[in-house]
Amino acid sequence: MSLAKRLAAEFLGTFWLVLGGCGSAVLAAKFGGDTNPLGIGFLGVALAFGLTVLTGAYAFGHISGGHFNPAVSLGLVAGGRFPARDLLPYWVAQVLGGLLAAAVLFHIASGQPGFAIDHTAAGAFASNGYGALSPGGYSLVAAFLCEVVLTAVFLLVIMGSTHSSAPAGFAPIAIGLALTLIHLISIPVTNTSVNPARSTAVAVFAGAGALGQLWLFWVAPLIGGVIGGAIYKVLGRPDPSVVGTGR
Amino acid sequence: MSLAKRLAAEFLGTFWLVLGGCGSAVLAAKFGGDTNPLGIGFLGVALAFGLTVLTGAYAFGHISGGHFNPAVSLGLVAGGRFPARDLLPYWVAQVLGGLLAAAVLFHIASGQPGFAIDHTAAGAFASNGYGALSPGGYSLVAAFLCEVVLTAVFLLVIMGSTHSSAPAGFAPIAIGLALTLIHLISIPVTNTSVNPARSTAVAVFAGAGALGQLWLFWVAPLIGGVIGGAIYKVLGRPDPSVVGTGR
Amino acid sequence: MSLAKRLAAEFLGTFWLVLGGCGSAVLAAKFGGDTNPLGIGFLGVALAFGLTVLTGAYAFGHISGGHFNPAVSLGLVAGGRFPARDLLPYWVAQVLGGLLAAAVLFHIASGQPGFAIDHTAAGAFASNGYGALSPGGYSLVAAFLCEVVLTAVFLLVIMGSTHSSAPAGFAPIAIGLALTLIHLISIPVTNTSVNPARSTAVAVFAGAGALGQLWLFWVAPLIGGVIGGAIYKVLGRPDPSVVGTGR
Amino acid sequence: MSLAKRLAAEFLGTFWLVLGGCGSAVLAAKFGGDTNPLGIGFLGVALAFGLTVLTGAYAFGHISGGHFNPAVSLGLVAGGRFPARDLLPYWVAQVLGGLLAAAVLFHIASGQPGFAIDHTAAGAFASNGYGALSPGGYSLVAAFLCEVVLTAVFLLVIMGSTHSSAPAGFAPIAIGLALTLIHLISIPVTNTSVNPARSTAVAVFAGAGALGQLWLFWVAPLIGGVIGGAIYKVLGRPDPSVVGTGR
Repeated sequence: MSLAKRLAAEFLGTFWLVLGGCGSAVLAAKFGGDTNPLGIGFLGVALAFGLTVLTGAYAFGHISGGHFNPAVSLGLVAGGRFPARDLLPYWVAQVLGGLLAAAVLFHIASGQPGFAIDHTAAGAFASNGYGALSPGGYSLVAAFLCEVVLTAVFLLVIMGSTHSSAPAGFAPIAIGLALTLIHLISIPVTNTSVNPARSTAVAVFAGAGALGQLWLFWVAPLIGGVIGGAIYKVLGRPDPSVVGTGR
Repeated sequence: MSLAKRLAAEFLGTFWLVLGGCGSAVLAAKFGGDTNPLGIGFLGVALAFGLTVLTGAYAFGHISGGHFNPAVSLGLVAGGRFPARDLLPYWVAQVLGGLLAAAVLFHIASGQPGFAIDHTAAGAFASNGYGALSPGGYSLVAAFLCEVVLTAVFLLVIMGSTHSSAPAGFAPIAIGLALTLIHLISIPVTNTSVNPARSTAVAVFAGAGALGQLWLFWVAPLIGGVIGGAIYKVLGRPDPSVVGTGR
Repeated sequence: MSLAKRLAAEFLGTFWLVLGGCGSAVLAAKFGGDTNPLGIGFLGVALAFGLTVLTGAYAFGHISGGHFNPAVSLGLVAGGRFPARDLLPYWVAQVLGGLLAAAVLFHIASGQPGFAIDHTAAGAFASNGYGALSPGGYSLVAAFLCEVVLTAVFLLVIMGSTHSSAPAGFAPIAIGLALTLIHLISIPVTNTSVNPARSTAVAVFAGAGALGQLWLFWVAPLIGGVIGGAIYKVLGRPDPSVVGTGR
Repeated sequence: MSLAKRLAAEFLGTFWLVLGGCGSAVLAAKFGGDTNPLGIGFLGVALAFGLTVLTGAYAFGHISGGHFNPAVSLGLVAGGRFPARDLLPYWVAQVLGGLLAAAVLFHIASGQPGFAIDHTAAGAFASNGYGALSPGGYSLVAAFLCEVVLTAVFLLVIMGSTHSSAPAGFAPIAIGLALTLIHLISIPVTNTSVNPARSTAVAVFAGAGALGQLWLFWVAPLIGGVIGGAIYKVLGRPDPSVVGTGR
């Protein structure tokens, strides 16, 4: 598959991740107010993020590999599964896809009377944050630790479920639902990133506070991705080159 | 498979989509009132819509392709996956199946003492709407944008997950859960259509307001379907005709 | 596989269905009272019922076919997929497995201080009912219609997803999640049966009211099962006998 | 695969089980307080536990078998699927992985202002308990019965879905969602263990009360695991050695 098509797939997949995950958070999580159980809550948002990846990976995985996330791409480089020369173009496509989704989401959300982004609120426009901008008020250290560890395990699941010894075809289910699980754990801590493109896309709209904390949601997921990729590279036996049936 | 059997499958599948999706919304979403957490809420309705397609596609997909949705059928024509000559009969079967489901649902719902449809309420009898008939009061423009974009991505997922390079057998999971995801995002905006047959079926029972807005839930999903189908036609390499193993 | 082992599998599978589905309803649905969102609600109960069948069918399906439900067994006879001579022993095994589960559940539930079954309440001990014993007060006619239609579609999904043209191995997912969907729709109407063994098992503990209405939860599901099995027998082409690859 | 790598996989998998399952319970279940529907509740925690196993089994199952649970390892010995000589090293790896996860979780949770573990509360730091330490106040006998029965069925699902006659590749879905189902039923009773490593890991942090009741969450799951493994050993025909197609 040509690089252009692979980048288009990453663009569309990350567009879907941000539109679906952040969109469900902005539009549907608190429908009717904090005490109204009609809204989908953190559970619904966690499911939505996971389903963006599950569905996107079945739709685009055979074109681009289905990363939709700069930390995943870097982790796969560290794990020996992705060529470093493609890393930067993938990152650009992912960030641009996320930004377009945030713009579309902003236009849809703006169609509700009285819509406004409270730039000082934790989780504003589905942004990630720590300290005063953490949904549960978690510290910078807790947020950093949380993002590193969860991204590392995310890469373990990605590397393991796409290993040639794993059952073929199931990886998008495992990877997507791993992202759901990550959100079930950590929305209260950082509003859950593990994905710098997702954090960047909404921070642009969420305002100065989110932008000022954006560094953490690049640094921590990237470190975690490298750790996870490197661990699995040792743990799994070296992938045999694509010889024989393999899949 | 004969056209008659394929139309019967589309009829039954769309019947199931409307009975299950709209049925869960009408009967179970707000059980016990707005503040009672026993009801399944928007999350449960989103899951129900997705499961109608997941289960229907495993049951009927090998007969009719499992569209259950006029926008899907048109999008697949645009994507080069479905013959235009079958479009109109599919649409008729889908709309009729949806209408029968709405009638059955109406009879079940009428068995509750005090049941009445408030024709002026947003989301009455699970109908779709914008402006005053949007659950969250979203504008016509926001509703239109939302329905176009989400139907377009829906077609991307359908085209991608049924592509000959995608893992075989998993498409109903990807497509069904994509519909769940779409609902997780957009129930507050339009009560979520992306399916003109579903909108038509319940609008007939929901009254003049829903019928007056029904045009949007044909036009926007159909446009979105064509966009999604056309994008994937370019993105995916041309489907090889069914030669060799296909996998 | 010997009939004895097949009956043991049906016994265990129906045990699991009642313990998991009715157990989650009795123990966890309303944890902390009606307004406490910690409880799993109807959504959690719907998921639980579906997962009993999904997991049970992967565990026991290759032994007994994984019916766990008299209406399924009868519907498969009507659909030409199950020999009539095995019907009665399957029914006995299913009812006995359900009864043991209800007894175990009763003993666990009794371990909570103050536990008592309100024999006059709708849904007591997860029992099914109509009229005054319907969770939402739905009439006998609505309950009957609901149980017939949902069991019929359940059989369509079972017959279709296990058809030789459907993707192999996915049927337990489709069938289990169809049962989840059926519960998402109809818990408010009848507390959802579509399964006479499940209804019988808990009615014995729920008291005279539930026992007096038990006839409906045999008659309606059995009628629905036959309708669904018969429709699919016509719709699907005759199953080729297991010749060649089967896929 | 070398024993060292298998133990590393069990360590990481159990780390993930405790971090994800107990982490979601500690951090996200009651977000905003008991009456705030934003929190993920018991349903979210049940989903999280199941997804740790589903994702971990796809990631590590082909390395270690994906037990992540001393009761599973023992049950598989009883079922003739796992060599007794590996039991103790597996148990050590599982407990150590769980303990590391509990330590990481404690550090993240400590980053919230005002965090403190109430050592006298039921379910403190996601610990398991009975009597005064049962979320719903269930008795020792009810807790014991519940843990034995649910672990036994868990092993039935594990043995059955990994049987050579079951569809290949789906076992992690069946097993993971079985654990979700087990939690849907029994969080109110014991906070759900069925896994001595998980119970041990958090009891260390939860205090003397949880440690004093820890015996039950070793004894009951181990008994249940042996029962389930032994029943399936009889029920399933002896596994043919891996000859022929494997399906």
